[in-house]
Amino acid sequence: MSAGAIFVWELLGTAALILLGNGVVANHVLRKNNGHGAGTLFITFGWAFGVFTGASIAAPTGAHLNPAVTLGLAIATPEKVPWSNVPFYILGQMVGAILGAVLCWAVYKLQFDDHPEPRETLGIFSTAPQIPNKPWNLVTEIIGTFVLVAWILLSPVYSTGSDGTPNFGNGALGYAGVSFVVLVIGISLGGPTGYAINPARDLGPRIAYAFLLPIKGKRDADWGYSWVPVLGPLVGGALAALLYLGVHNLT
Amino acid sequence: MSAGAIFVWELLGTAALILLGNGVVANHVLRKNNGHGAGTLFITFGWAFGVFTGASIAAPTGAHLNPAVTLGLAIATPEKVPWSNVPFYILGQMVGAILGAVLCWAVYKLQFDDHPEPRETLGIFSTAPQIPNKPWNLVTEIIGTFVLVAWILLSPVYSTGSDGTPNFGNGALGYAGVSFVVLVIGISLGGPTGYAINPARDLGPRIAYAFLLPIKGKRDADWGYSWVPVLGPLVGGALAALLYLGVHNLT
Amino acid sequence: MSAGAIFVWELLGTAALILLGNGVVANHVLRKNNGHGAGTLFITFGWAFGVFTGASIAAPTGAHLNPAVTLGLAIATPEKVPWSNVPFYILGQMVGAILGAVLCWAVYKLQFDDHPEPRETLGIFSTAPQIPNKPWNLVTEIIGTFVLVAWILLSPVYSTGSDGTPNFGNGALGYAGVSFVVLVIGISLGGPTGYAINPARDLGPRIAYAFLLPIKGKRDADWGYSWVPVLGPLVGGALAALLYLGVHNLT
Amino acid sequence: MSAGAIFVWELLGTAALILLGNGVVANHVLRKNNGHGAGTLFITFGWAFGVFTGASIAAPTGAHLNPAVTLGLAIATPEKVPWSNVPFYILGQMVGAILGAVLCWAVYKLQFDDHPEPRETLGIFSTAPQIPNKPWNLVTEIIGTFVLVAWILLSPVYSTGSDGTPNFGNGALGYAGVSFVVLVIGISLGGPTGYAINPARDLGPRIAYAFLLPIKGKRDADWGYSWVPVLGPLVGGALAALLYLGVHNLT
Repeated sequence: MSAGAIFVWELLGTAALILLGNGVVANHVLRKNNGHGAGTLFITFGWAFGVFTGASIAAPTGAHLNPAVTLGLAIATPEKVPWSNVPFYILGQMVGAILGAVLCWAVYKLQFDDHPEPRETLGIFSTAPQIPNKPWNLVTEIIGTFVLVAWILLSPVYSTGSDGTPNFGNGALGYAGVSFVVLVIGISLGGPTGYAINPARDLGPRIAYAFLLPIKGKRDADWGYSWVPVLGPLVGGALAALLYLGVHNLT
Repeated sequence: MSAGAIFVWELLGTAALILLGNGVVANHVLRKNNGHGAGTLFITFGWAFGVFTGASIAAPTGAHLNPAVTLGLAIATPEKVPWSNVPFYILGQMVGAILGAVLCWAVYKLQFDDHPEPRETLGIFSTAPQIPNKPWNLVTEIIGTFVLVAWILLSPVYSTGSDGTPNFGNGALGYAGVSFVVLVIGISLGGPTGYAINPARDLGPRIAYAFLLPIKGKRDADWGYSWVPVLGPLVGGALAALLYLGVHNLT
Repeated sequence: MSAGAIFVWELLGTAALILLGNGVVANHVLRKNNGHGAGTLFITFGWAFGVFTGASIAAPTGAHLNPAVTLGLAIATPEKVPWSNVPFYILGQMVGAILGAVLCWAVYKLQFDDHPEPRETLGIFSTAPQIPNKPWNLVTEIIGTFVLVAWILLSPVYSTGSDGTPNFGNGALGYAGVSFVVLVIGISLGGPTGYAINPARDLGPRIAYAFLLPIKGKRDADWGYSWVPVLGPLVGGALAALLYLGVHNLT
Repeated sequence: MSAGAIFVWELLGTAALILLGNGVVANHVLRKNNGHGAGTLFITFGWAFGVFTGASIAAPTGAHLNPAVTLGLAIATPEKVPWSNVPFYILGQMVGAILGAVLCWAVYKLQFDDHPEPRETLGIFSTAPQIPNKPWNLVTEIIGTFVLVAWILLSPVYSTGSDGTPNFGNGALGYAGVSFVVLVIGISLGGPTGYAINPARDLGPRIAYAFLLPIKGKRDADWGYSWVPVLGPLVGGALAALLYLGVHNLT
């Protein structure tokens, strides 16, 4: 697959993911919405089926949508995801994430204007810890991403052919399967840090918030925390790849 | 497929969709119901699996159930959905939507009679914005429908053969997939305008409310807003078709 | 398939359905339960995936679990479900429903003993209208069952071979599909009467409640209403069969 | 399959299950979490899709993750699950369960430190009855596990080849199917005892809580009750195997 095609499909899929994922938080947080205050199960469903939507759009590239997934697959299966393709994956993911955040703002423009607490709006776009403590917040993000990437590598539900594109022998359930795993990571491991588990998902919308979105009274983008949901997922993805290599040597 | 068969299958599928979609709002809004006040996740599940039910009934026609989907598919893939069939699709959808609204009224007849605030009942049938502002309400409806139709066109989950009928190579998951996408659009993009994302879904029940249903004390049908959830979805569907054509030229 | 096998599989599947369906209401209604007061979405999920569980157990017989389904299939496709088999289906369903209700009582025995309002306990087993009015309650039950049986007959998701056993060309999704349709019927049409949509589901547990279960202070079994959730579903199933026959003559 | 491979895959799958299952309870119970107080539906979804995640990881061994499942399959189908493999299954399950509980503690370490009621923390790891009464608590656990193992044995959704590994003729839905059944057991039968339905799921984390986890102010591990969620599931699994053998002789 050409570099340009990788860029385009990952951009489209990630834009859909972030539009829908940021969107559910906007619906929950901003008043004068049908989903105002709808709660954590609602939010985790939004992110999960945002993954379903984005991943099934980005099928031709294996639907990474996440630099931690790309890194894990490149370490574990470089014959399927060559390192030379990695920059185009990540670039598409980052541009798509920024675009998705801008579209989310457009959907909720009137609600942003109306909201009495504009300082709360960063949480719509990027994650923040409930209890700030960078080493342990890192641990939480590492373990959450480790589950995601280990599942992608080990489970037969998400299986790919020799060129890294998904294997439809399992029907289209692979995409539903990924969304079920993201759902349960959010439900079960998302309590402390909001489960970024994806550097593009967190950094792209943070950049959009800081530099692009015309939200009156908005706060700073909390750059001091911003590296945690980038580094943690990358470490988690890499560790999952090591587990995959170890298990395949062992069994 | 004959014009009559298109009309019949789209009518049946859309009637099921609207009966179930209007039904969940009736259950939530009207007092003396088991689901009274059950909330936004409940409502979005009702619409999503209403789509599953209606779409899997209307399988022979590709299960559009939505003029914006028909328009998008006709622009993007006229070899599968010829323009000459478009009027029969839309006619079936409109008649089905009106019929579904009437059936919903019959299911909840006692609850309508009992409800102390009959002016609230329009919201059971048709959408209304949380913050009225027609240009931005249009933007919200355009983006929501764009996600739906772009997913239908780009994702391999909903795939059709050369004659526009669904491809069962993916098993029946295509219908579940569409319902998952409608679920997340409701959860993530439905806050500001109630995600009509379908002209027939909004206009058909509005016509039923205004002219057919014997609800005592009912309000006017808010015709001033009624064109927004018609035009927005059509524009969104057309833009998704342009994206599809652009991506397929590019990659 | 032998009459005895039909009886056994329908008994097992219906017992699972009723154990799980009655169980979720017991969990919600009776205090000192983890699910006490968990709400309507919770209850509809319990019934829906109770259908999934029971239907996938009763696969060899086509997984009717419901006299209204058996009646509809016998009218619409007597070559698949011969009338001579109908009594064995219904007998298995009734005995299974009574058995499931007894098992539910055993699971919640301590909670029944502890509950301060034993008169509320009929609602765990059988349905009751929110607003009693037998003709309109009948309409609600007829329309709900009509959707279920029409979907089973018209949708390709639940498809059967020439001998009435399910066709696994669609994988096992048929069972998930039926559970999604029962979920949305509960969510969207269950408000007024509690969606019996199945004579065995309502009458079997009512018999168990009246004659078998040692619940102290229990109320009468409301026999005056008991025929509505029997007749309504049978009429709805028969009407769906007529629709199926009409559509297949037409298209 | 080698004993070592059975041990490794069951360990990985069970660790994922317990990390995610214990995690959702931690998210709900401990304050300063995004999911604090999110409720019973939230908890049952976490366990259900934890099963999906763990079961699809442990595909090569048939994904038991549960000594009651292993026991039931060995009794019912010893040609697929030989008794000589049973110890390696159970050892992998127990070690995986302990490991999963430790990982859950690491994810929520800051929240454990912050929680004002450390005595409540046992419930994150192991089950407890709402109304203590060992004979009836046993009955509840027996019936819940009976439904799970009977479904695994009788349903064609979870089907295995002659060597006990899953049959992908049904796509990957088998794993989703198991998770739907665990979801409904939690929703419908989990009220009185918290549906351990798995000796490893209850005993492994209890051991971790008692001996490994550095939670300040933690309570005792309630060893007096601990045998109920071990014995009950084993009895339930064995009874389901007897039902399977009886039905297959009969039909």
